[in-house]
Parts: sequence; C-alpha cells; structure tokens
Amino acid sequence: MKIEYMKRAIELSKKGAGCTNPNPLVGAVIVKEGKIIGEGYHEFYGGPHAEVNAFKNCHEDPKGSEMYVTLEPCSHYGKTPPCANEIVKKGIKKVIIGMKDPNELVCGRGIDILKKAGIEVEVGILENEIRKVNEIFIKYITTKNPFCIMKTAMTLDGKIACKTGDSKWISNEISREYVHKLRHRVSAIMVGIGTVLADNPSLTTRLNNGSGKDAMRVIVDSHGRIPLESKVINVNSAAKTVVAVGQEVEDKKLMALAQKGVQVIKTPGKDGKVDLKYLMNKLGKMGIDSVLLEGGGTLNYSALREGIVDKLMCFIAPKIIGGTDAKTPVEGDGVEFMKECIELGKIEVKNISGDILIEALINNKLCK
Amino acid sequence: MKIEYMKRAIELSKKGAGCTNPNPLVGAVIVKEGKIIGEGYHEFYGGPHAEVNAFKNCHEDPKGSEMYVTLEPCSHYGKTPPCANEIVKKGIKKVIIGMKDPNELVCGRGIDILKKAGIEVEVGILENEIRKVNEIFIKYITTKNPFCIMKTAMTLDGKIACKTGDSKWISNEISREYVHKLRHRVSAIMVGIGTVLADNPSLTTRLNNGSGKDAMRVIVDSHGRIPLESKVINVNSAAKTVVAVGQEVEDKKLMALAQKGVQVIKTPGKDGKVDLKYLMNKLGKMGIDSVLLEGGGTLNYSALREGIVDKLMCFIAPKIIGGTDAKTPVEGDGVEFMKECIELGKIEVKNISGDILIEALINNKLCK
Repeated sequence: MKIEYMKRAIELSKKGAGCTNPNPLVGAVIVKEGKIIGEGYHEFYGGPHAEVNAFKNCHEDPKGSEMYVTLEPCSHYGKTPPCANEIVKKGIKKVIIGMKDPNELVCGRGIDILKKAGIEVEVGILENEIRKVNEIFIKYITTKNPFCIMKTAMTLDGKIACKTGDSKWISNEISREYVHKLRHRVSAIMVGIGTVLADNPSLTTRLNNGSGKDAMRVIVDSHGRIPLESKVINVNSAAKTVVAVGQEVEDKKLMALAQKGVQVIKTPGKDGKVDLKYLMNKLGKMGIDSVLLEGGGTLNYSALREGIVDKLMCFIAPKIIGGTDAKTPVEGDGVEFMKECIELGKIEVKNISGDILIEALINNKLCK
Repeated sequence: MKIEYMKRAIELSKKGAGCTNPNPLVGAVIVKEGKIIGEGYHEFYGGPHAEVNAFKNCHEDPKGSEMYVTLEPCSHYGKTPPCANEIVKKGIKKVIIGMKDPNELVCGRGIDILKKAGIEVEVGILENEIRKVNEIFIKYITTKNPFCIMKTAMTLDGKIACKTGDSKWISNEISREYVHKLRHRVSAIMVGIGTVLADNPSLTTRLNNGSGKDAMRVIVDSHGRIPLESKVINVNSAAKTVVAVGQEVEDKKLMALAQKGVQVIKTPGKDGKVDLKYLMNKLGKMGIDSVLLEGGGTLNYSALREGIVDKLMCFIAPKIIGGTDAKTPVEGDGVEFMKECIELGKIEVKNISGDILIEALINNKLCK
C-alpha cells in the first residue's frame, strides 16, 4: 500500500466538485506492478462511479492489480450497477478503501462482497482528508439536512460594511472569485431579506472563465417584504429562487411571487419569523445537500442560534474602517457572557492573495 | 560570509528585548577558521555594546578573525567608547554588518573607521529581519516619537466583549502571556479612561515565571474622570503612571493626582480632548521609545485617525458571541466608504495555541 496512490485518488475525486451533488466525491486509481494503469472519478450526478471510470480508462488488463478508492464501493443497484461486483468481476487482487460508506444502513456491505470473493481489503487511509472533501455528502447522507457553510468577509476590525453600508470591496478580487467557486460547489445560496433590500444582488455564479453553475437562491423573508422587481427573482438562471416566509404573509404576495416562478416555502415559527430548522429540513427533502449562507449579521446570528450552521468561512481583509455604527458579521441579541460563546474547532488558516481565510467547524463531529 | 552566523547574531540580539530601551537590540559573533570563538549582545541600557561583550567572551585571540554584527558599530563616545575603534584595535580582518546605523546623522561613520583601518566590510545582510527586530529603535531614533503597537483581542465575529461588557476571556492563556511579554518589551502601556472605568486594570507585567518589568502606564483621560482609588494609580510598581488630560480639567483634580505620585500631562486639543500626537511627542521627549496601545474602540479609532499607530497586533479567538450592541476593536466615527479605509501591510499570521495572531504595519515605511 502506498499512500501516494490514495492522495492521487483524492485529487481526482475533487475534480467532480459541484457536479455530483447530492452524491459524494470519489476517486479511484488502479495500480499494477508499481504503475498506475487506470484512474477515474465520479464526474457528475447520475454518471458512472469512480471505479467504473477507472476501469474504462485502463490501458492494461486490471486482473491481479490493486485498486485505491476513496470511498467504499457501492453494493446496491442504483442509477448504475454495484461497483463491488464489478471489482470482483475484473479480478482485482486488493482494494484499499479510504473510508467506509458513512451511510450506516449500507456501511460495510461493499466490503463484504469484496472479502467474500477473496479480495484483500484495507480500510481507513487518509480518512480525515476524505471526510473533509466529502463534508457535504456525509452531513446530508447521515441527517438528510443540508451542510451549511456560513461565509463572511470582514475587515481586521470586524466590520462587514462601512457605517454608510458601503462594502465594495472588503475582500480582494481573488477572495471574491473564491466565493464564486463556493457558489458553484453548493446546491443553494441563502441570504436574508436585509441583504436583498440593501444590495439587490443577483446571487448567480460568475467564475472568471465564464463557467460555473448557479445554485438555488434561498431568501429568508419572514414578512414577505421582497420587491417583485428584485434581481434574485428576475435573473435569467437555470436555478430556481425560493422565498421562505413566516405564517403571517398574505396570500396575495405569495401568489404574486409564485407567478414570477418563485417557489414559496411557508414555515411555522414564533412571532411570524421563519423557522430555519424547518426550512433546512424542507430544503433537504428537495434534494439540497448544501447551503452557502451569505447573510448579514441578523440572519447569521439566527442561523447560529438555531444550530443549522456546520462550517464558518471567514475572509479577513487587511483593512480597518472603524465606526460604532458599522455592521459586524454576527449581530442579533448575542450571548451575555463569554462562557456561553460558540466555540469553533478544526481551524485552518489560508492566505488568499493577502486576505486571510479562516475556516472552522461549528460542530466538529464530522471530522474525528 | 556565512548567513548562519548573522542569524545567530540576530538570535543573540533578541535576548536583550525589554532591557535596552531606548537603545537598539544588537548581537555579535566572532568567527575564526570556521568556528565561533566569541559571541555577545547588548544586554541592558547603559551596559557594554554587543561587540565588547563578544570580545569579552572570546576564548581565543580574535586577531585575524571575522565579526558578524547586526548593527553598524558605533563611532562615538557615549556611555561606552566607540566599538569601531575597539574592533580595529583587536585586529579583526573582516566585519559583516547587518544594517547601517538608521540614524542619518551618524550613519556610515563606524564603517568609515573600519575601512580606513584596512578592514574589509560587508553591509546589508538579513536587513529586513534586523529592521523588524529593531522596529522600535528605528522609529524612535529617526522621529523621536515612540513606536506604537495597537493590540486588540477579538472573537471571529469581530467583538472585544459581550454586550454586557464581559470579556473574560476572549483570547486564550498563551495569548494573554504573550501580551505580558509585550508589556515587558515596551516602555509604556496606554489605555483610555473607558477601560479604567469599566475594568479597573492594574496594567502591570505578570509573566508566568514571575519576572518581567512594568512599563509606564499612560491613561488618556480628556476630562479628568479617573477615580483616585483606581488600581493604575495605587499599584505598587517601579514604573510610573501618567494621566494625559485636555485643557478643561480643573487644577484641583490635577493636584490630587500629583499628590498620588501621578505625572499629569496637559495637552492642547480641540473640544477639550487630548491631542494624541502632542502626547506621543511628549512621551518621546521623556525617553519613551515604545507604547503598547491596549485601548477600547474609541481610543483605538482616535489613535488611528491621528496617525500615531505603527503596528497592529490582533489576536483572533476561534469563538463567536454575536450581539448588535457588543463592542468592536475600532469604533468612533469610522470612515464612510471603503476607499477611505486604512490599509495594512507586511501581514504576518501566527498560531498561538489555537488563537490566530495577525501582525501588520500601518505605515510600512519602516520595512523596505
């Protein structure tokens, strides 16, 4: 077993990012006599699995070779036949598996098929790295709720805009491109009505190379204040727009939104406010495995308090703007004492062309 | 010339940190036939220079050897005789100098003495690193104003305290020890009256090993509101306490402060406010080469606006507390538009046991 081959399989798996949701990112490498003879990854939702693509790309007979695959090969007939059977059929001698299927209901079944066929199996190689690559899939498959990433961009004095509301730009161009890559990666983007009213964003994905798929746009708008002429409602996009409202919004407004092609989700909730947990659950049922929360301070605080946030991505720009009245990334009521603070784990710090990106998990059960 | 010897000289120089102010940190290494035969550093203000200490520690005759010294050897009779002459006398063959004397009035004279004596001289080795080690000295010797470090500690959502004022603790124990090392390093600590009224700190230096020298305590208190029973006034400390006030404070209060052993500095300034530039200039005249500004948001903003801050040290804790009313590190009026922001340079990021320390220069003229 050589760890380099698993690293290669992980690299391959990442190529599918943004195209396989809600399926996992998987990569596979076939090695014979110390040489890679085939490799592949899960390229798009509904398409062939990584193992099948690796066989397809083989330039030698894989019989007697070793396969490195980041996730346990599947054992069930879904959109494609079970990969475990395919591996047996091809005469693979040994399979090195990054991590078991996180879905407890099927976990281990693929491994059983391999072992029963007399194939040597090794499990748990670079598992932490693979868990990170598949953080969205793991949360979704185990909870049916989307993985929620809270993204903020602030100055080094903790502001997301000047007191006038001007925020063009806090973060640099490369950081902003990074956010568009994130939008491409996830299934939905969520903002509050405050952001729509203040900035009128279109919330589409605009990568520098012109590519990128739009994510579903979700607007949290408890009282149905969204103007029908908002960009998020009228934008030309393959992805739909969802407006989540509370109980007290009039049917007339909901009808007008529906006529614009907007999907309205009416949620229960106290004081006519949107129930964010209900909303996330509903989005999960619609097949949304991941939400990028690009909220202002009010929505961010509600989301954290309701416990729907899994990960924080905080861009910090080396700038200072000051201002008692300037907005900060998390507002709302806030906690009263430090001992009640939300603690973050698995901190990672990256340099994005001078901006500092801090990534952290809110609930770090996902990564051992 | 071997860069490792200059690195060693820099390491030695750092040992004097906190004890040589307002003199520079200097280290020297003497090398003969590829072996270090003596090393030394400037240990304390008024004590022998690094070169003299290196000679003192020599275990062989330095004749014919090379000397590595971080700063140009002095050429004047001060508290000690000129080092350049001493180097000539000892028969050193070659001198490798990290950087020239930053004081333009004497810059190059030490080098001239060496060259005239036929000694080979090389200048400008690891200069950026040495400039950083001597950032305090360089600012002070060239401007006669203290080098001012603004230190803040905030949560990852940009707060320096909960809405109730509770801030125990934002940063972790190791970060707090780090701040006490900074207090040991500088000549003065500065806070605003708001901090004194809210937290009643003693502003002494408390290192874990029990050592550490107190810095002068400077309280910016425009309207003379400081209670006579404040800890900063009554603390048992070798360092003195200075209260800076505006023009409108009554003599009675100033007398009462003076009777407590407090030095009062009355500054000009609009609306009875303390003129921070005047104050820094005055502190410089008193021999204060460095100020650690541990202010709240109001004083921090004033200091930045007045242009007295040279460096920012921002500890970021992986915690979130939220709160529209929670305090942030820089408040005051703030700028109106992003294009007016204060840009920071020379960003460095350190991991302090899980806290993230971001160091940056406000005015990066000091480092080329």
